[in-house]
Amino acid sequence: MSENDCIFCKIAKGQMEAEVVYEEEGVIAFEDINAKTPVHVLVIPREHVPSMAEVGGLPDGITKRLFEVAQAVAEKKGVAESGYAFRINNGPDSGQEVLHLHAHVMGGRRLSMP
Amino acid sequence: MSENDCIFCKIAKGQMEAEVVYEEEGVIAFEDINAKTPVHVLVIPREHVPSMAEVGGLPDGITKRLFEVAQAVAEKKGVAESGYAFRINNGPDSGQEVLHLHAHVMGGRRLSMP
Repeated sequence: MSENDCIFCKIAKGQMEAEVVYEEEGVIAFEDINAKTPVHVLVIPREHVPSMAEVGGLPDGITKRLFEVAQAVAEKKGVAESGYAFRINNGPDSGQEVLHLHAHVMGGRRLSMP
Repeated sequence: MSENDCIFCKIAKGQMEAEVVYEEEGVIAFEDINAKTPVHVLVIPREHVPSMAEVGGLPDGITKRLFEVAQAVAEKKGVAESGYAFRINNGPDSGQEVLHLHAHVMGGRRLSMP
């Protein structure tokens, strides 16, 4: 899949609608349309990086912001205290569906391990 | 829990045994002693950071290395192609047990969402 066909790139560029929870220059967070938990937000770098294998292509500061924005989202959604999982899926066994690196921020109920 | 009582700090300092998969100056990866998947490795910063709320205290380069080392571990353990999840648990609902930031690298079978 090229960057031009990437739905998360389209969301990052404002070319496709999403329920944005937070955004800044290099990172955007939006509601997962197939939410699996009461709180389920995706945090992505705006830059197209398919998966963890290419994460080295991101500026160091952006990788830190992925963590910090996830925490900010958890606070905004009221699950920072109750708890949440930060999960990045990579490849077939994990259920990765979109080949643009994204972190799931999931909370609002007790979370099992995979 | 103070840094002095932290079992992951002890592993990072070589004061407690662990089955180390990979290590470098700022990051260490070791087998989870309660593995929940065929491959289950923990990747941690050596520096004591309790959870995502304090991740800003880490150097930017270390946050990137957490991702890169996870990928390197997945390659070493043979799950980079089949797929794996990178998961950080934060707080009670997530099942976080040790208050030293750690990323679970889980693979080797089909992984459900929490």
